[in-house]
Amino acid sequence: MQKVEPKILPGFLELLPADQIAFNKMKETIRNVYERFGFLPLDTPVLEYADVLLAKAGGETEKQIYRFQKGDADIAMRFDLTVPLARYVAMHQNDLAFPFKRYQIAKSYRGERPQHGRFREFYQCDIDVIGSESLDLIYDAEMPAIIYQVFTELGIGKFTVRINNRKILGGFFEALGLYDKVTDILRIIDKMEKVGEGVVASELDKLGCDPDSVRKILSFIGITGTNEEKIGALRSLGCESVSFAEGVNELSAVLASLRDFGVPEDYFTVDLTIARGLDYYTGTVYETKLDEYPGLGSICSGGRYDNLTGFYTDQRLPGIGVSIGLTRLFSQLKEAGLIAEEKKTVIDVLVVPMDKESMPCALEAAGTFRAAGLAVDVYYQEKGMKPKMKYANRIGVPFAAIIGESERAEHKVMLKDMFGSEQDVCSYEEAIQKIKTGR
Amino acid sequence: MQKVEPKILPGFLELLPADQIAFNKMKETIRNVYERFGFLPLDTPVLEYADVLLAKAGGETEKQIYRFQKGDADIAMRFDLTVPLARYVAMHQNDLAFPFKRYQIAKSYRGERPQHGRFREFYQCDIDVIGSESLDLIYDAEMPAIIYQVFTELGIGKFTVRINNRKILGGFFEALGLYDKVTDILRIIDKMEKVGEGVVASELDKLGCDPDSVRKILSFIGITGTNEEKIGALRSLGCESVSFAEGVNELSAVLASLRDFGVPEDYFTVDLTIARGLDYYTGTVYETKLDEYPGLGSICSGGRYDNLTGFYTDQRLPGIGVSIGLTRLFSQLKEAGLIAEEKKTVIDVLVVPMDKESMPCALEAAGTFRAAGLAVDVYYQEKGMKPKMKYANRIGVPFAAIIGESERAEHKVMLKDMFGSEQDVCSYEEAIQKIKTGR
Repeated sequence: MQKVEPKILPGFLELLPADQIAFNKMKETIRNVYERFGFLPLDTPVLEYADVLLAKAGGETEKQIYRFQKGDADIAMRFDLTVPLARYVAMHQNDLAFPFKRYQIAKSYRGERPQHGRFREFYQCDIDVIGSESLDLIYDAEMPAIIYQVFTELGIGKFTVRINNRKILGGFFEALGLYDKVTDILRIIDKMEKVGEGVVASELDKLGCDPDSVRKILSFIGITGTNEEKIGALRSLGCESVSFAEGVNELSAVLASLRDFGVPEDYFTVDLTIARGLDYYTGTVYETKLDEYPGLGSICSGGRYDNLTGFYTDQRLPGIGVSIGLTRLFSQLKEAGLIAEEKKTVIDVLVVPMDKESMPCALEAAGTFRAAGLAVDVYYQEKGMKPKMKYANRIGVPFAAIIGESERAEHKVMLKDMFGSEQDVCSYEEAIQKIKTGR
Repeated sequence: MQKVEPKILPGFLELLPADQIAFNKMKETIRNVYERFGFLPLDTPVLEYADVLLAKAGGETEKQIYRFQKGDADIAMRFDLTVPLARYVAMHQNDLAFPFKRYQIAKSYRGERPQHGRFREFYQCDIDVIGSESLDLIYDAEMPAIIYQVFTELGIGKFTVRINNRKILGGFFEALGLYDKVTDILRIIDKMEKVGEGVVASELDKLGCDPDSVRKILSFIGITGTNEEKIGALRSLGCESVSFAEGVNELSAVLASLRDFGVPEDYFTVDLTIARGLDYYTGTVYETKLDEYPGLGSICSGGRYDNLTGFYTDQRLPGIGVSIGLTRLFSQLKEAGLIAEEKKTVIDVLVVPMDKESMPCALEAAGTFRAAGLAVDVYYQEKGMKPKMKYANRIGVPFAAIIGESERAEHKVMLKDMFGSEQDVCSYEEAIQKIKTGR
């Protein structure tokens, strides 16, 4: 038979079972926190009408999208979960309770050129709250509280949620008469840590900022201190923009609420350089970095948007949300050796009949174990003990329950601790207790 | 602003939260049973190289597939989870433990013309076991045992797993010299219940079956009785095909094992008319029907295949598996009014601060509830009690924990049973107990 080489497209992550289990465990932890914070599940289609999905997009997004014709339809694969949410809320607004809190954990697609750490198919774990007409500022503080809970439970190291407010940035540059250069200025500022103040100043100059503005920009992004000190410094900058003042007040209120939410002070910080690329954010914005691995970039980002659904409806539906790019995060953690290898399987016990005659007892034991909530594999192949135990080792199961002539006579199993040396003949019930304790 | 109408493509299922929760609950039940039977999770890409995905396909499949070019790549969306599994196993065979047992619960895509009950994006819940070189017949009995457990736990009514063996069908028609007409014959036979023996006989005649063959075919599909009686009747048919005899022996052995697996006799039956459309099945085949809703068609189907990976590798990797088409099943159950409406939310309790001053206590209570494992929503909007309680009713939450001046002074909540009339002022701990008991 003519063979086709089995291979997958570049930029797509496919895992072996042990890694898949670790991945799913992270996904499940995130889902669990999202539900505990009162978010409801949503599952929109991967394919949408291209004109609906691209109502707001343009430029890079449009180039990177997977888009094709089928019959008469111009179809596109979703490139994030936020635009489909806006479409969903606009479409179903009469059937939803507001504020509408939803989570969606699903794959998105971007047909960009594959490069290290960039994926064409990637899981996003999103939460958003959409208000009808208005949405209280306290939701801006709830987001970092959820981020705090998620990453604490994921246990991948100390992290810091960086918070800013787009109104501060917008107002500040507006007051300087530089609003149309904000994107370029932020791109330059972003390199501060790498290239130093001198290079930044010279690039701002090249961009056409006058010396006074350059000095003001440098003192703005040079603001340091505690969160309260930063708020104080912002207030004493003498910036006369209304938007700026509003942003500072919002940021200050969000910081105060964060304490009520019980987020420890060293887990969040004001970072005036954060703007977020997407131009739909209008207020609070977030990024999250692992303290010991800043090179991983932001592992959870988002913010507030006032006009996301504006392309679909006249109804004012302001929202706020954050997203975790799980595929990228997992792949980076894996590379950094931060994915724990200790639990390679979801299986609690492998039942091993020693011979064909022990099969009915093996099935009986497996059924009893399953009824007690255990995940049970049974090795059915008629082979010698060596391949049977090799299989047990390869799947990484913590216990094997072996049944031979003497065990089946007594409806017992020989329970073997696969990671230790212990093995005991015990009743099904005793085995269940030991497995539950040991798993 | 120019508006784009928010709409989705026809043939795509999108649910409101209450239905999404019911859908997810079914998905979770299936996943849980699959894991308890020792299957490991797998998550292959939605997009694959078209030539890899279509190595075996042709005809209808190829016409229905979503396929497009991006850069140099000829890309297709998967149309099932079985072909990607074959590709995965062929590709990673050196890294897997055999028998390799995997489950995958994910969306597949077919760009067919949308019609009632057919979806272009649909969840499939698949399990497969792939052996290296060989795979014991007992796995053929494990599949119905898993189907039995899944549908018992889903609780959607009495069902019957129908079992056949392709070797019986193949051997029988081969012995009659009608092997090349099998597909047409089965299509005709399939209408027996609807049109009766006379019409079937005349159509078989038109197809070119001689009167003796027609008589034999009718007596073959007319075989009735208990499973054991059917096996007996098959053996006394006098069919001389080796393949036929092998099929009958396998079927008989599978039936015997099913009893060892504890599947009650009235949940499975030999059905000699089942062939399954896909031409890769080579042995045992299954369909599952709800006894009271036979019109829904098969809700779980599958079988044994010996050559699935043959397009990718010379290594012999026989397998067996079944699939539940969850999107179609859910949509049919919903239409038939069989989706229970009682639990509309995943949220256990809504915390409602009566005024702004009660907010810190509300956050404290919410945090305490979450730490106890409860799913907690908090109503943060500064509105009157009426919209607050309206929201509680709309999201269908079973309890509201209201905090006003007197409650916050004592760090207590007024716990209101939203489905009853009871309400009590109680401590956080008492509230947790009541919510856990009542949810």
